[in-house]
Amino acid sequence: MSKLSNESDYRLEMDSIGSRKIPVDSYYGINSVRAQENFKISRSRVHPELLKAIIIIKQAAAITNFELGLLNESKQEAILAACQQIIESKLLEEIDLDAYQGGAGTSTNMMLNELIANYALEISGKQKGDYKFIHPNDDVNRGQSTNDVYPTALRMAVLNLLAPLTETLAELQQALQEKEKEFANIIKLGRTQLQDAVPITLGQEFSAYAEAINRDRWRLYKITDRLKNINLGGTAVGTGLNTSHNYIFKIAKHLRHLSGLSLSHAENMIDITQNMDIFVEVSGLLKASAVNLNKIASDLRLLASGPQGGLAEIKLPAVQAGSSIMPGKVNPVICEMINQLSIEIICSDQAITLAARDGQLELNAFGPLIAHKLLNMLEMMQQAMRIFIDKCITGIEANQDHCRNLVNHSLAFVTCLVPYLGYEKASQLAKQSLTEDKSLKELILADNILSEEELSQILKAEQMTTPGILKLNKNN
Amino acid sequence: MSKLSNESDYRLEMDSIGSRKIPVDSYYGINSVRAQENFKISRSRVHPELLKAIIIIKQAAAITNFELGLLNESKQEAILAACQQIIESKLLEEIDLDAYQGGAGTSTNMMLNELIANYALEISGKQKGDYKFIHPNDDVNRGQSTNDVYPTALRMAVLNLLAPLTETLAELQQALQEKEKEFANIIKLGRTQLQDAVPITLGQEFSAYAEAINRDRWRLYKITDRLKNINLGGTAVGTGLNTSHNYIFKIAKHLRHLSGLSLSHAENMIDITQNMDIFVEVSGLLKASAVNLNKIASDLRLLASGPQGGLAEIKLPAVQAGSSIMPGKVNPVICEMINQLSIEIICSDQAITLAARDGQLELNAFGPLIAHKLLNMLEMMQQAMRIFIDKCITGIEANQDHCRNLVNHSLAFVTCLVPYLGYEKASQLAKQSLTEDKSLKELILADNILSEEELSQILKAEQMTTPGILKLNKNN
Amino acid sequence: MSKLSNESDYRLEMDSIGSRKIPVDSYYGINSVRAQENFKISRSRVHPELLKAIIIIKQAAAITNFELGLLNESKQEAILAACQQIIESKLLEEIDLDAYQGGAGTSTNMMLNELIANYALEISGKQKGDYKFIHPNDDVNRGQSTNDVYPTALRMAVLNLLAPLTETLAELQQALQEKEKEFANIIKLGRTQLQDAVPITLGQEFSAYAEAINRDRWRLYKITDRLKNINLGGTAVGTGLNTSHNYIFKIAKHLRHLSGLSLSHAENMIDITQNMDIFVEVSGLLKASAVNLNKIASDLRLLASGPQGGLAEIKLPAVQAGSSIMPGKVNPVICEMINQLSIEIICSDQAITLAARDGQLELNAFGPLIAHKLLNMLEMMQQAMRIFIDKCITGIEANQDHCRNLVNHSLAFVTCLVPYLGYEKASQLAKQSLTEDKSLKELILADNILSEEELSQILKAEQMTTPGILKLNKNN
Amino acid sequence: MSKLSNESDYRLEMDSIGSRKIPVDSYYGINSVRAQENFKISRSRVHPELLKAIIIIKQAAAITNFELGLLNESKQEAILAACQQIIESKLLEEIDLDAYQGGAGTSTNMMLNELIANYALEISGKQKGDYKFIHPNDDVNRGQSTNDVYPTALRMAVLNLLAPLTETLAELQQALQEKEKEFANIIKLGRTQLQDAVPITLGQEFSAYAEAINRDRWRLYKITDRLKNINLGGTAVGTGLNTSHNYIFKIAKHLRHLSGLSLSHAENMIDITQNMDIFVEVSGLLKASAVNLNKIASDLRLLASGPQGGLAEIKLPAVQAGSSIMPGKVNPVICEMINQLSIEIICSDQAITLAARDGQLELNAFGPLIAHKLLNMLEMMQQAMRIFIDKCITGIEANQDHCRNLVNHSLAFVTCLVPYLGYEKASQLAKQSLTEDKSLKELILADNILSEEELSQILKAEQMTTPGILKLNKNN
Repeated sequence: MSKLSNESDYRLEMDSIGSRKIPVDSYYGINSVRAQENFKISRSRVHPELLKAIIIIKQAAAITNFELGLLNESKQEAILAACQQIIESKLLEEIDLDAYQGGAGTSTNMMLNELIANYALEISGKQKGDYKFIHPNDDVNRGQSTNDVYPTALRMAVLNLLAPLTETLAELQQALQEKEKEFANIIKLGRTQLQDAVPITLGQEFSAYAEAINRDRWRLYKITDRLKNINLGGTAVGTGLNTSHNYIFKIAKHLRHLSGLSLSHAENMIDITQNMDIFVEVSGLLKASAVNLNKIASDLRLLASGPQGGLAEIKLPAVQAGSSIMPGKVNPVICEMINQLSIEIICSDQAITLAARDGQLELNAFGPLIAHKLLNMLEMMQQAMRIFIDKCITGIEANQDHCRNLVNHSLAFVTCLVPYLGYEKASQLAKQSLTEDKSLKELILADNILSEEELSQILKAEQMTTPGILKLNKNN
Repeated sequence: MSKLSNESDYRLEMDSIGSRKIPVDSYYGINSVRAQENFKISRSRVHPELLKAIIIIKQAAAITNFELGLLNESKQEAILAACQQIIESKLLEEIDLDAYQGGAGTSTNMMLNELIANYALEISGKQKGDYKFIHPNDDVNRGQSTNDVYPTALRMAVLNLLAPLTETLAELQQALQEKEKEFANIIKLGRTQLQDAVPITLGQEFSAYAEAINRDRWRLYKITDRLKNINLGGTAVGTGLNTSHNYIFKIAKHLRHLSGLSLSHAENMIDITQNMDIFVEVSGLLKASAVNLNKIASDLRLLASGPQGGLAEIKLPAVQAGSSIMPGKVNPVICEMINQLSIEIICSDQAITLAARDGQLELNAFGPLIAHKLLNMLEMMQQAMRIFIDKCITGIEANQDHCRNLVNHSLAFVTCLVPYLGYEKASQLAKQSLTEDKSLKELILADNILSEEELSQILKAEQMTTPGILKLNKNN
Repeated sequence: MSKLSNESDYRLEMDSIGSRKIPVDSYYGINSVRAQENFKISRSRVHPELLKAIIIIKQAAAITNFELGLLNESKQEAILAACQQIIESKLLEEIDLDAYQGGAGTSTNMMLNELIANYALEISGKQKGDYKFIHPNDDVNRGQSTNDVYPTALRMAVLNLLAPLTETLAELQQALQEKEKEFANIIKLGRTQLQDAVPITLGQEFSAYAEAINRDRWRLYKITDRLKNINLGGTAVGTGLNTSHNYIFKIAKHLRHLSGLSLSHAENMIDITQNMDIFVEVSGLLKASAVNLNKIASDLRLLASGPQGGLAEIKLPAVQAGSSIMPGKVNPVICEMINQLSIEIICSDQAITLAARDGQLELNAFGPLIAHKLLNMLEMMQQAMRIFIDKCITGIEANQDHCRNLVNHSLAFVTCLVPYLGYEKASQLAKQSLTEDKSLKELILADNILSEEELSQILKAEQMTTPGILKLNKNN
Repeated sequence: MSKLSNESDYRLEMDSIGSRKIPVDSYYGINSVRAQENFKISRSRVHPELLKAIIIIKQAAAITNFELGLLNESKQEAILAACQQIIESKLLEEIDLDAYQGGAGTSTNMMLNELIANYALEISGKQKGDYKFIHPNDDVNRGQSTNDVYPTALRMAVLNLLAPLTETLAELQQALQEKEKEFANIIKLGRTQLQDAVPITLGQEFSAYAEAINRDRWRLYKITDRLKNINLGGTAVGTGLNTSHNYIFKIAKHLRHLSGLSLSHAENMIDITQNMDIFVEVSGLLKASAVNLNKIASDLRLLASGPQGGLAEIKLPAVQAGSSIMPGKVNPVICEMINQLSIEIICSDQAITLAARDGQLELNAFGPLIAHKLLNMLEMMQQAMRIFIDKCITGIEANQDHCRNLVNHSLAFVTCLVPYLGYEKASQLAKQSLTEDKSLKELILADNILSEEELSQILKAEQMTTPGILKLNKNN
């Protein structure tokens, strides 16, 4: 902030604590400035989606108050215009208020009240800070309390970020299903506990990934309904003190209209004002998804390990050079990003849980931490999914021959023969294969146990990787 | 274990690792003994509900294999009888196998195979260990793999523990609702951020608790559907290798019948074999509930703080003496137990999350940790809820006069007067009240601002704690 | 980024993946651009302290390589000048690279190599991108691998942020000790489990806070020694491939000189390259401190609860208005910020733990998450402590009379009389006090049990709050 | 509990809550019985090490009180004998009190007071329950409060479990170092981010594991000093109310003697009574170790993956059969146990952190959870380390030829040649090797680039895996 030298460069604002000089042109007021100073601890700001949702609530309130005769038309118009102007500018990305703030969101609400009031004053041709014309609390915040505005706005912001996330998850599922089809006939080694087990197809592996993402998507889709109950009109503690039933219904209606979200006021607004478990639920579902994403990303890294000294069953797209020491080394960086995202989500969920758990009596003071973690999780996850699809999943290639070779040289194979040879003969061949370093196929054909035709039928991909025991045309 | 001295006291069992002397009367076999030695690290054993579910699967398998001609009638009958005998005895509570076991549950499955086989041999009049008559793997485990038995059994055990838990949560909700009614007219101070705010009723506070528990109950109820998809018949990696479609359908049918649970086989059994996100989801919902329970328990401790130097608005039932130093000191020990339970649940959820996240390729090797944490959570939570209801919630009493006094002597009160006196007059009275140490009521009556009748009407419980502004019969 | 229209607006850069057009004036190169695109998922950038530490390593490397004849003088000078210019500009705060990046920090290292090379080219009067004169890898990164640069730089950044943090913790301890002295004679109610217990002084309460912070400070101070072992010169996996012992010693010496930190190369650089437990240790200590800070902040909120309906034993400084509904409501927002900080630290510690735990073989790919969480924790904690001292602790005032009144009206008092009256008489008086609503003092004097003088001696602050039993001049 | 039918089968005990029939022969008293009923929620009991430490404190108190003339000789002797008898019996393993108890440990302390009193009565030839002879509170608990006994006993129990743990960690370090020596010359592929990197020896990999464990051991060793400060004599809130300085010094002296631990009373006992950060610190260090253990166990599983379709560089000892489906399948079950242990430790640390964080004012009510988690962690970790050494580490074998083959067929190799051939020639050979499927060695010899002798010198294990560049006797 540049140094201002003259008294005329400032206006004086007052609150219950005292007074404060504010640069005359500043849209921020005394509450904003105090909040900026009190909470300057991190590199993170309040999330723009939350700010935007609060501003839309201010619009709904202005319309409602006008209809109830509590706000005159010119004030209403100035406030609505100011809100629109702020939303349309890049201001929300630049608002300087620390995400780690005490006070249950009061500072965020107060700062927006002041910003809107000063924009509205400017629009009305008044001086900034001339709150006798348009007042941050009496006009912009009329009929509201931080304690009903903030939880409502948080629900709106969550809903607005959930929509693109579930869409992107659907695309991820689809991308995985395309690989499922593409790799349907690539027979490979199935591994349990990292030890060679029985044959599976690469397509089947991708089908399991796709199915897991399908569950994630479905869970997040289902939760939206439960996020639509709001406590707007409950004021300080949810009892609706100093508002009216009329106000409560009207503001919900206008908010639905302005936001495009099918919100409605909760039966028990006292509950919604103090309890944050709904956000723990949402975040818990994101965590379940993080578990699946981590599993997939780690599996892909394992399957792509090599190129010579690893499993090397698939090849991930190269998206950047991996090392300055080894020519051509490429690392699975997108998967590694997903692994870290999963940690971020798990630990943010923990933070949300602890913050929700610490609520006391009529309010949870730690909404700002919940908002910060949850909104960033939703946004990060969506952006990471987008990149995961485009820069990793879509471009995966199979090393088909190597996959088949590994099955052929492993004992995975032998289990498929048990129904035809019996457990003991199979065991003996397995041991022989290991000690004589010969392939099972070789041994079986050499011994005339099964014909080449029979063997190739048994070892067809679909035969080895689905239920059912083949009827062979022979008499053993 | 007592020392046995003669060779005849032992039988010799063998596995792929080697051979092992086993006390001749022991129901345990070589796999059991190895597992006991390999995993002796904790004071926790495998949960009996899991063991029971596995045994029921063994029953379903025996019937299925008999129907498919893969097991003769006498074996089937011996196995079924052995299973029944084990379930009905207290054995499941005493089985000595560490909960913290590697191997994806193989040891648990193997130990039960051996136990059942030896019980079945005994029932059939054979020597224990004489597996040529009834074999742990070839007969008891026929058509199964740990990898399909274990995840199926875990789902069954979870369902069996979820049912009583949701019932007890319903009772908790009811107990809270009874307090809601009982305390409906007790006006008290609402507090936000631990600072005096506006009036509320004690009943309203309990309504918020009841509503939160209602959500918890509902969530757990809804999850049961998603737990009913099983992978039995998928064998090693979910492909169904060496089983048949016939087997898969039959065993699910018999399992439904034997367990009373409406289980059905999953579309994609490969997915269910390797992915554990469903348990993360369940556990995440328990965690959301733990957040609510902690909030309630902490609130009750705050409200009951005192008896002289705290809020002292309610009195919790005394369930044990609190101190040997102060006569009559009683502590909120049941609530403190709930607070610790909430930590247990949150951290068990974390453990389940990490274990689920660490799955690799076709299997998650860490099912035993997931089972241990989840089943204990469910059981503990149910038992704690039972005690919470009986020894705490039901016996809570209100200190009605003290509640009212705190409102009367606070400024909470003044906010209710704003619509009648205006913000500024109210502020001035508030300040006067603080400096002159007089009650607001006193000042208002002394100044003739409102009549005693008007005042008492405004300050009625229902007026102060619901939306709506009173129409007074006066001309200010 | 503005659209560039002419071919001449771009230069072409190449890597092992392919080629890429780069705006001709850009200091970023092909690796930077790819990294920016691959990891655009969050609102968080790489921490400037980490960037600065890497740049200092580049300086040390340039000097070392020059001395070893591996870099000519003009290149050395250009690189050193470029590094200095970047450090002195505000560039480090603006560098656009996502904190959540895969690749073990390769992108961060590569981007700085390119930035330095292009600044050095500019300084040398060459075109940006003309890497044949000064090459990002061959010159700036010479003798280095991300795998030795990154862990070394992270240690340096941690040390640089630990120093101001421990200083600020020392100031917090001092501020608490000043309150300890100021409140030494304020006798008040001690509470255990939120129930009235025995007398204590407010000063003693602050002494316990100060002592806890003292431990925190001491722990963090002690850890610095263990952070000084670096793996610079270990190159890719810590074996020192393609470097020399000479290089390893020289670069450590120059780095000590340039950074002012007493770093030295680890005995086992392979260990340091792959294991991240040292950061888990640091973060675990920060977490222990977070536990203490939360305890203090929560206690202060409890003690300041009210003003009428809470404990109200202390008054926290008012730093901002708390509500638009109630005139004069002030909330403990600074303490609430500390509560949220404690959650942030606990959950960041969890993230660091998980990332460190996921390391595989010769490297931990998740260093970027560890760096992001740890550096932000250190910085946030220091800034929050500063505010906690200045805007909360220093200004705390005691409500001395209220403190004394609560003791006098409680039964806490009676425990002090046990040695003089016996347990039974004390109990009887306690009961009488509760039922007759009279103070203990009143009853004792009325009954002539102790003289006013004796009583006042027993009930002196120092007598009630230290060990020792008074010898009374009387014959009971 | 068997049903008792006659009145004479019971005695009547009373407390401030009321009265209660107790089986006449029971060593438990009314407080024990209430606690058993109030906290029956889990399958976990209070840890025997904690119980034992409390009993030793009771002994120290009895001696001290006797010396101070507060307990007569016969009571002292009966109490000491009772304590000894309980410690020597198996009783501590069988005491039925839930680990998840409210009340800050009061129930544990009270139960032991009653047990000791009743044993002492029995020893003295009195009826159980005849507390007028020896009283649980007035005699056994004399001069003590749960609030000083419990934190002191917890420190003692932690110290007693830390000692064997650090010893076992030292043995683990040694076992790893023996493998380091054994595998010193086994050259193998180093991998970063699961991609082939540069050569390393298997011995070097084990040296990194050993070094990490060395740090773990050292950290735990250092912490013991900080655990030796106790608050015994501080009574209810640490002020030492109703004790004397004499008592405080004497009891510490006797406790040192009886326990063999060098305990001394803390300067600030108020701090120690309420703050639990020391346990968070201990647990945080265990967590750092858990991170290393997980890394090692996961690496071993990766290196042992196969036998045909994985890395297969080492072979873990077979400790149990892995599957009933595949003959000879063996799984890395001990490592998987360690992986799960690491999760257990991380999440127990979280629980301890949350419990410590929730302390309020003069006491932390959640000590029982801290004790439960910490003592079990210490014990489990020690037992798991023992098994890890004996059943895994010691028996690991290297697949030396396969290790060498993987290096030879990888490009890891080529990096070592860069100093002799230059980066570009090396790159070209690398590409040729990949496309023509020929080994690098083959190509180099075919092209006469280096002589067989030179090449074999460069590719010696020590040359490829240590710093330094070879001087070749040639003129290129």
